[in-house]
Amino acid sequence: MKTRSFASVCCLLLFGQLCFAQQGDPAGSFKPASTNQPGKLFPQVDATGRVRASLNAPQAQKVQLDIGGKKYDMTKDEKGVWTGESLPQDEGFHYYQLNVDGVSIPDPGSRYVYGAGRWGSGIEIPAADQDFYALKDVPHGLISEQLYFSKLTNAWRRCFVYTPAEYTSNPTKRYPVLYLQHGSFEDETGWAVQGRANLILDNLIAEGKAVPMIIVMDNGYANSPKANGAAGSKAQPVSVFEEVITGEVIPMIDATFRTKTSRLDRAIAGLSMGANQTMRIILNRQDKFSYIGAFSGTPNYPSSDALDPAVFLEGKFRDGGAINKSFKLIWLGLGTKEPDPFPGSIGAFRTMLDKQGIRYTWYESKGTAHEWLTWRRSLREYASLLFK
Amino acid sequence: MKTRSFASVCCLLLFGQLCFAQQGDPAGSFKPASTNQPGKLFPQVDATGRVRASLNAPQAQKVQLDIGGKKYDMTKDEKGVWTGESLPQDEGFHYYQLNVDGVSIPDPGSRYVYGAGRWGSGIEIPAADQDFYALKDVPHGLISEQLYFSKLTNAWRRCFVYTPAEYTSNPTKRYPVLYLQHGSFEDETGWAVQGRANLILDNLIAEGKAVPMIIVMDNGYANSPKANGAAGSKAQPVSVFEEVITGEVIPMIDATFRTKTSRLDRAIAGLSMGANQTMRIILNRQDKFSYIGAFSGTPNYPSSDALDPAVFLEGKFRDGGAINKSFKLIWLGLGTKEPDPFPGSIGAFRTMLDKQGIRYTWYESKGTAHEWLTWRRSLREYASLLFK
Repeated sequence: MKTRSFASVCCLLLFGQLCFAQQGDPAGSFKPASTNQPGKLFPQVDATGRVRASLNAPQAQKVQLDIGGKKYDMTKDEKGVWTGESLPQDEGFHYYQLNVDGVSIPDPGSRYVYGAGRWGSGIEIPAADQDFYALKDVPHGLISEQLYFSKLTNAWRRCFVYTPAEYTSNPTKRYPVLYLQHGSFEDETGWAVQGRANLILDNLIAEGKAVPMIIVMDNGYANSPKANGAAGSKAQPVSVFEEVITGEVIPMIDATFRTKTSRLDRAIAGLSMGANQTMRIILNRQDKFSYIGAFSGTPNYPSSDALDPAVFLEGKFRDGGAINKSFKLIWLGLGTKEPDPFPGSIGAFRTMLDKQGIRYTWYESKGTAHEWLTWRRSLREYASLLFK
Repeated sequence: MKTRSFASVCCLLLFGQLCFAQQGDPAGSFKPASTNQPGKLFPQVDATGRVRASLNAPQAQKVQLDIGGKKYDMTKDEKGVWTGESLPQDEGFHYYQLNVDGVSIPDPGSRYVYGAGRWGSGIEIPAADQDFYALKDVPHGLISEQLYFSKLTNAWRRCFVYTPAEYTSNPTKRYPVLYLQHGSFEDETGWAVQGRANLILDNLIAEGKAVPMIIVMDNGYANSPKANGAAGSKAQPVSVFEEVITGEVIPMIDATFRTKTSRLDRAIAGLSMGANQTMRIILNRQDKFSYIGAFSGTPNYPSSDALDPAVFLEGKFRDGGAINKSFKLIWLGLGTKEPDPFPGSIGAFRTMLDKQGIRYTWYESKGTAHEWLTWRRSLREYASLLFK
């Protein structure tokens, strides 16, 4: 533990507002986004998925709405209020920002999330299938913040733990555990906030489609205090995430929560960078997990080259029969609108699995890109297959 | 429950970074604030409590740092980076913002909290006594997010629940409960984030200074769907907070967590608006609570007029002997730098208590205003007296 330092921690939790459904609205009718701050009228979303932003900035020279990889000029009215609209956005959750005289800023109307490497604005575009992640009148589990000191990183870390609604009323029952990881430039808040993992599981469990389970969401960035690097060159951080999860987090969770501790009762999954990480973990730690989900990512990322199972990941996929025997489920998913290099990279990985005769479940999220609706759907599909 | 609507909820949790203590720094040496976003070098704080902000905004005409009720002009360097410093700020946590060409924006360098009626920037000025709310190597409790549907407000609501570290390892033990409320323009996240209630209790419990207890932090804004108002006049919202806490939240908490349910094992406290609310609740519901804490607020706010116990709050304080008998503790606190009307208003209330011979504990937080360090200290003092 660091000496001569003090650790300051705070936890903060956000809450969505109720909002009226947009189904049935005539095209062009803008309504405040469900992800707005309390009482804020902007940003708004219309039935076609367009986003309308507004900012009171009489002295600004130029204001833009920056969403979906495109900046839209906003226009100023006689009172100094700037307003602008985007083209229709994909269904689901998107990071975005405003730009005032060249400065990217969070939209003061939106709630803030951690993604794209910053706390900033996010907006929800209602999806046709939004019911599966909606807050409904079903029993709700708890999301708990767990602080822990990691000797491997020599730092305080945090994970969030979902316990199903029935957990508190069954004081002796033990539960299987899913370890669920975020993507790059995100953190341990991603799955609970943007991912709505708790609501997805609450709904699945209430419908009898998923086994009640605990979900642990940790931070995928975990570096050793010792950096790598030849003398004179810039030190490179060394990730110890695999060791943190298997050597520190799992024992802590098993000691704190009423878990089932057999590998048959432990699953892991991640999105993008998290998919890459968790697949590497599970291949090295087959004694720990028997289910793996890789959402929009595989360990050959970003290459689309054909994989040679004799050498890829030190030959871990060489013996397809052994892999099939070891894992109860290998699950891969991808959005149909995901950009390069994801389709090619995951395609090359699938080709290798097929060649080795390795069984896996394949899922395509229709009309979504490398974004959270793809991963919410992936979690729904994957979680419904676990521990059965 | 609303029909033709869907509820969208998300929860989000923040985490402070480790930071090096500022004790021993020479005056004038600025260091990144502990409340910064990961990896962000600004804002910074020096040993005298000055805040230095920075913003890359080459095209902006004017940029200001807005903190402590004062706007400080920032100056632009040849690269277009604006930098500016405040005068020394009080120890503790402050809301603040930047201003770009007349627009108030969250500082892209800080983490965001809900206070002052918006999600926006907050900054921690290290306090001489910061150790009591620091993240230390002691057993840590959990903070859990509890969603619930309130029939009284016809809306989904949320509270946070702190369970002490030993809660998970004593599966049959039951715990007393403190209901703890935020102030105006804040919400149920305030005590867990700005207040650091979990760390304060973790530390107190580890030192044997407080009894292990559960803390429930709800949202003090709870309006009936039916508004009040004469025909033709603007409808006024009707708060049902008292009914929500006593009729909905307490039964839910007692059903979900291992609580002790006697009034002798139940305390309530609040800050500012929350102090006003909780004192009114406890006077009406003496069957529910036996401890009350009022941090920087009393139910005669904002008046400083002398109180007539025969009529004030319908005579609830008329019988001082009965009040003394009913409550195990009445606790009042105030910061020595609090502005009008707090000292006068709370002074008038104390005069009335003295006149009625009502016993109470009085605490002054040295050098702090109507801000979170006053309330962190108040919680430390109050919690250490509960359930003993």
